[in-house]
Amino acid sequence: MDQLIPDYLADLLDGVRDNNEGELPTYIPILAEANPDWLGVTLCTMDGNLHSAGDDDVEFTIQSVSKPFAYALALQTLGLDAVSEVVGMEPSGEAFNAMSLEEEGNRPDNPMINAGAITVNQIINGTGSTVEDRVEVIREFFSRLAGRELEVDEVAVEGEMAGADRNLSLAHMLRSFDVIADEAHDAVLSYTRQCSIKVTIKDLAVMAATLANGGVQPVTGERLLDEEVCHQSLAVMASCGMYDAAGRWMARVGIPAKSGVSGAVIGMLPGQLGAATLSPRIDVNGNSARGVKIFEALSKDMGMHLMSTENRAGSQAVRSITHNGEETIVKVQGLVNFTGAESILRVLSEYDFEDGRVVLDVSNLIESNKMGRRMIKEAMRRLRDEGHDIAVIDPDSELKHRLMDDGEQIPLKK
Amino acid sequence: MDQLIPDYLADLLDGVRDNNEGELPTYIPILAEANPDWLGVTLCTMDGNLHSAGDDDVEFTIQSVSKPFAYALALQTLGLDAVSEVVGMEPSGEAFNAMSLEEEGNRPDNPMINAGAITVNQIINGTGSTVEDRVEVIREFFSRLAGRELEVDEVAVEGEMAGADRNLSLAHMLRSFDVIADEAHDAVLSYTRQCSIKVTIKDLAVMAATLANGGVQPVTGERLLDEEVCHQSLAVMASCGMYDAAGRWMARVGIPAKSGVSGAVIGMLPGQLGAATLSPRIDVNGNSARGVKIFEALSKDMGMHLMSTENRAGSQAVRSITHNGEETIVKVQGLVNFTGAESILRVLSEYDFEDGRVVLDVSNLIESNKMGRRMIKEAMRRLRDEGHDIAVIDPDSELKHRLMDDGEQIPLKK
Amino acid sequence: MDQLIPDYLADLLDGVRDNNEGELPTYIPILAEANPDWLGVTLCTMDGNLHSAGDDDVEFTIQSVSKPFAYALALQTLGLDAVSEVVGMEPSGEAFNAMSLEEEGNRPDNPMINAGAITVNQIINGTGSTVEDRVEVIREFFSRLAGRELEVDEVAVEGEMAGADRNLSLAHMLRSFDVIADEAHDAVLSYTRQCSIKVTIKDLAVMAATLANGGVQPVTGERLLDEEVCHQSLAVMASCGMYDAAGRWMARVGIPAKSGVSGAVIGMLPGQLGAATLSPRIDVNGNSARGVKIFEALSKDMGMHLMSTENRAGSQAVRSITHNGEETIVKVQGLVNFTGAESILRVLSEYDFEDGRVVLDVSNLIESNKMGRRMIKEAMRRLRDEGHDIAVIDPDSELKHRLMDDGEQIPLKK
Amino acid sequence: MDQLIPDYLADLLDGVRDNNEGELPTYIPILAEANPDWLGVTLCTMDGNLHSAGDDDVEFTIQSVSKPFAYALALQTLGLDAVSEVVGMEPSGEAFNAMSLEEEGNRPDNPMINAGAITVNQIINGTGSTVEDRVEVIREFFSRLAGRELEVDEVAVEGEMAGADRNLSLAHMLRSFDVIADEAHDAVLSYTRQCSIKVTIKDLAVMAATLANGGVQPVTGERLLDEEVCHQSLAVMASCGMYDAAGRWMARVGIPAKSGVSGAVIGMLPGQLGAATLSPRIDVNGNSARGVKIFEALSKDMGMHLMSTENRAGSQAVRSITHNGEETIVKVQGLVNFTGAESILRVLSEYDFEDGRVVLDVSNLIESNKMGRRMIKEAMRRLRDEGHDIAVIDPDSELKHRLMDDGEQIPLKK
Repeated sequence: MDQLIPDYLADLLDGVRDNNEGELPTYIPILAEANPDWLGVTLCTMDGNLHSAGDDDVEFTIQSVSKPFAYALALQTLGLDAVSEVVGMEPSGEAFNAMSLEEEGNRPDNPMINAGAITVNQIINGTGSTVEDRVEVIREFFSRLAGRELEVDEVAVEGEMAGADRNLSLAHMLRSFDVIADEAHDAVLSYTRQCSIKVTIKDLAVMAATLANGGVQPVTGERLLDEEVCHQSLAVMASCGMYDAAGRWMARVGIPAKSGVSGAVIGMLPGQLGAATLSPRIDVNGNSARGVKIFEALSKDMGMHLMSTENRAGSQAVRSITHNGEETIVKVQGLVNFTGAESILRVLSEYDFEDGRVVLDVSNLIESNKMGRRMIKEAMRRLRDEGHDIAVIDPDSELKHRLMDDGEQIPLKK
Repeated sequence: MDQLIPDYLADLLDGVRDNNEGELPTYIPILAEANPDWLGVTLCTMDGNLHSAGDDDVEFTIQSVSKPFAYALALQTLGLDAVSEVVGMEPSGEAFNAMSLEEEGNRPDNPMINAGAITVNQIINGTGSTVEDRVEVIREFFSRLAGRELEVDEVAVEGEMAGADRNLSLAHMLRSFDVIADEAHDAVLSYTRQCSIKVTIKDLAVMAATLANGGVQPVTGERLLDEEVCHQSLAVMASCGMYDAAGRWMARVGIPAKSGVSGAVIGMLPGQLGAATLSPRIDVNGNSARGVKIFEALSKDMGMHLMSTENRAGSQAVRSITHNGEETIVKVQGLVNFTGAESILRVLSEYDFEDGRVVLDVSNLIESNKMGRRMIKEAMRRLRDEGHDIAVIDPDSELKHRLMDDGEQIPLKK
Repeated sequence: MDQLIPDYLADLLDGVRDNNEGELPTYIPILAEANPDWLGVTLCTMDGNLHSAGDDDVEFTIQSVSKPFAYALALQTLGLDAVSEVVGMEPSGEAFNAMSLEEEGNRPDNPMINAGAITVNQIINGTGSTVEDRVEVIREFFSRLAGRELEVDEVAVEGEMAGADRNLSLAHMLRSFDVIADEAHDAVLSYTRQCSIKVTIKDLAVMAATLANGGVQPVTGERLLDEEVCHQSLAVMASCGMYDAAGRWMARVGIPAKSGVSGAVIGMLPGQLGAATLSPRIDVNGNSARGVKIFEALSKDMGMHLMSTENRAGSQAVRSITHNGEETIVKVQGLVNFTGAESILRVLSEYDFEDGRVVLDVSNLIESNKMGRRMIKEAMRRLRDEGHDIAVIDPDSELKHRLMDDGEQIPLKK
Repeated sequence: MDQLIPDYLADLLDGVRDNNEGELPTYIPILAEANPDWLGVTLCTMDGNLHSAGDDDVEFTIQSVSKPFAYALALQTLGLDAVSEVVGMEPSGEAFNAMSLEEEGNRPDNPMINAGAITVNQIINGTGSTVEDRVEVIREFFSRLAGRELEVDEVAVEGEMAGADRNLSLAHMLRSFDVIADEAHDAVLSYTRQCSIKVTIKDLAVMAATLANGGVQPVTGERLLDEEVCHQSLAVMASCGMYDAAGRWMARVGIPAKSGVSGAVIGMLPGQLGAATLSPRIDVNGNSARGVKIFEALSKDMGMHLMSTENRAGSQAVRSITHNGEETIVKVQGLVNFTGAESILRVLSEYDFEDGRVVLDVSNLIESNKMGRRMIKEAMRRLRDEGHDIAVIDPDSELKHRLMDDGEQIPLKK
């Protein structure tokens, strides 16, 4: 039984195995030595379950896939305003190593291009940090995201630094515009060490799942990021994560994603899952050729497009209205977000209540959000104002209990 | 009770009423004559319920808000391949009236800039269509989207054609690159008539809700578009709908949207709702100044960010496992999409089944999708192979019934 | 004897005759019908002598070669300030039909791209002129430049207007930015008629020679343009005349030039000659393939590079200093421009004059300019102040006579 | 008498002295300490005469004014083909420190932007040279151009290297595209040392005059560069020397020029003079504010526009045709370039020669070039073929003597 999803994933890999498109990158020694046949996929659910097929234990350097996580770390520790001062969030329409800055403000366009990523790296742990301390903060954060101790690949660092002219060029440019203050060499060393942290796709799937899960690491249950930080990171990936092909990617695949030159791609469906693939051959857009194909299949098979209505939730939230003596029992179910609450309110407003107590039975609720709770509370208040006694059946759930108790006031007219 | 949401929306409008940013556009006569104080918002749920506040009955010309609907019509009738031949789907990083084409292929970058919208208009009803016939097809389609007969504002057409140099310039350019074949004047007239269809924000909210609802008009229940066409339109709006500020919009608001020069903004949250606002003063980015503020508040208050996990669905899909004599009864609930099915499978695979019948109780299911059904069916098949009798309790639902009957096979290994 | 230069030119043509590079343009019907083997070259000296080889009597439409002449006409009649308000003078780095305007000011970059040329056309004879009157003013001016009545090729006009989308696109864009006020169709018709004036390379060589001659038509002797207008036109051609390859052209050929799609190239060496070639096959840069080769050979053989020192003039301007009794006779020769005058002054200042009359013998002078005359006059004044009698021998020349008589004062310290 | 030109120049300086536009650059320490009131101008003629006014003895670092001389040195020692492999010659339309490369070929656009200048520096003395050896070669060449030993300002080098991020960024970019091979730091150090050579405007005027004089240093008479190298350098300066304003500069001033951030501007009129100005305040285009004004006045007063016909030479080359017995004596004068020879040939071909000897009297000739000599020789040959005896009167000149003796054959038809 527990082979069912891995079997599906294995089939998925078989479907792309013969695709030989793309090339190993030649400008980073350690990547040129990768096995071009490596092929793997891992999914991580919001409950922290991992499903894998293929090469899910191979370690490789994280490279550009580190960008959204470093960006999230900067947002979490410094806040959006401070981060926005030094890096934008618009697609640049340019290659990953583009040298342009935004016309106004001299900021790199977004944190997914190298100029932006070097800038983000520089503000982590404060601009006065040593390279060692900064990279340790990043390594430690990535380790908590992955749920195991990750390490920097020192051989990779050495190899990349030997051919780091493009990044050194960017770092000097950033210095010349006062975007960064560190010595250019240190800035590039710090960023290169971030890129050289070794991961597997199992690590990446969990890390991605943490972003998809609103910041709670799904295996350890630790909250590592605020919900808003995750929104921001995912939104920037949606428009800038897949380089030149971002528009086509969002239309065809519909999963915010980030690719890296070591052949990994991560994808995140908010509230659903994190995914990671490995296949080292890189296509002309700079993305893993087979990784792109795997995500296309995942999106199509699993109905996982961000624009899909298949994951709709909250309608039909009133399960039943029944009578028990003078009590009218309203049984609600599923999700009480705006959509769920709107559905409940509509039914209540159309219903011809008899006199007597109204009982709200929330024992079938799965989840609620703030807006939904506010709306239900306000509806209860209005029923009470009309003269009804109100009671709630909430047998087993702290969470649902909050529906009536959290003291929040929806900002409605008197 | 049914005033609760309108009250909230009215509060929302009050919060932005004093904002006097922006200007009425001067280059289209009928827009210069609009009342700058008009202010309204309408929401339409997936069940076709409308909630409004403010000026929801004012008629205005649809202008650029027509673009995603015309694009969807072209996709629906001609297919993605044919449409992609003449228009791309990447953000252009340029203003709405930019004259550039993609470097390769001589296509306009996307259907949200005027060059792309003129091109999309030209292929509707066939490139050989008369202007009259083509506009009638569009008007008729928009009317079905809105659920009432819409009309072209002939005075607006006349006024815009008198100052249509920018669009005429684009049309001649498109002709010179063989992107369109019609006479430039006819192409611009046809597009201008599309832009001059009169709507209210109630119309727009329903039209937007149709895209958010996977193509089924939520009031009439008529299927007007395929699900894939809606994905494509929403994805293109996500990256190109709000002009230069698309990245910031997706990060801060997180709702695919489209604005128009007449002061309307529409927004769509897939599976949740369509929204429309009206406020005629236009900011420097070309968007309704107060409309942007309303959407920011909606997103924040209602937890409606596309990247939010609040609308998560499908986890905790196994409600209970109980025993009744030799029967083991597995009661599932909520949504059975991949996430829901994964959750069910995990519980089943970890459960130590005794001999005897396994009963799947789906009476608490709200919804399922194809992937979820395939996974559950395969799980049942495996339990049967292990020697269990299988039964399903599905008391009241045609839909849920399909769980066992739709004959689809998930492509798993033997 | 008078065959000597034609013989040289005929050899030049033989050297490129087998070059089959390039293609006839297909988008203008009359050009597609040209004889691809036409080959000719004509030179016109500052004395109005024509030297030709090859097809110097073939009539063709002037096309873009009209641009510098129309620009000169606008400058002459409206002045540089008025013309600069609507068109710039910087290379655009773009193709002839580029749609961009300058970032500031919404002017076309320069008058050699179509957008600039349409704009220049529009201001000739006033922006309120009819097309007929404007084109007649242009035709009449071109005729005086060529020294014969030129005519518009009506068949060419009709053919070009049928495929004029690119220019119509530009005209509408220019209207939308208020650069031009005419109806777009009229603006393009007016420009197309300008481009359809029929010329031979003999006409073009004389027209080019007029620009090279500071505005005096060298055959008729009529002054058609001010010297400053010619400087301006030549300077703009130097940086913008040969499209993308302007830098290489100026380095390798060193002759301000303008090419047209009908296969003509004109070149001008100030004070030396005008040249025109015809060969209809057009290379990838939009220039006549064999025309470019002919100019390269002309420049190399004839030492005609604008940066060449071979045409240096004015040094060694003192031919001799002799004594005749108490008179000291200073005999000057050649050109008295700054260089010539500087040379004279230096000799005079180093010469140990005896008392008595100083006689300046200018009978060997060929030419002088204002600066040179001012310097010589001032030098004579200083010699007089030192106590010398001054006399001038100027036997036969009105022009040289001006050396002492033109009443101009050089602005020197007392 | 010898104060006449300095007086004029002093007046010129007085005319701009009150202009306080522009700012001292702040990013290079030594420049920020310059005296903003320094003001000077020096002219150097083709005979090596210097005329100065103002601060002509102030030493400052040469900065970007070094670019055309280093480019000329590279062309002279390596040839145009080798240099063109690594740097182009088209205007970039961008600022001096632009980071772009040409779209094709990954070459910097031209040697006047920093990327191009760093690249040119790198190939001097071979790409394997040490920094010390390379800079010594450059310093030694510049010294011969100036006619005195120039020195590197070590304090300036140190100050510039401390803030050299922009150039380091360029150097790393050039390395990353394999345009240069040196370590980035060495490349920038080498270029910075070139820029830190100390000069006065007297030095610069002589250096400029050498380029204007076809490569012969006018004071020492030493040939330092080939004529073609000078054409190339001057042509590139004409299109790229004055940054963004190149088109306007060539139209208004008409003198190939180069400016530097230390406040110097040099200008060259081929065959006429070299000029240099100093005024340290820099305008928004990156050029010396008062320097630009001085050149505008020089061009206007002195008729020194490259497109001017005032320096025309060679027409009216036949002074007289007289008879002495059976001899027909043709007396020529001035310059015998193409124009001069054409004029002679025309007169000869129209003249009705009687039988008997034809005597060519060249004793009034000032100069001839190869094309002119070829044409005259061929004309003489044709007269001989018609039966005339030919004789030449050439009393005093080795140079003119070559008219008959240099054995060159003009490529004419048999």
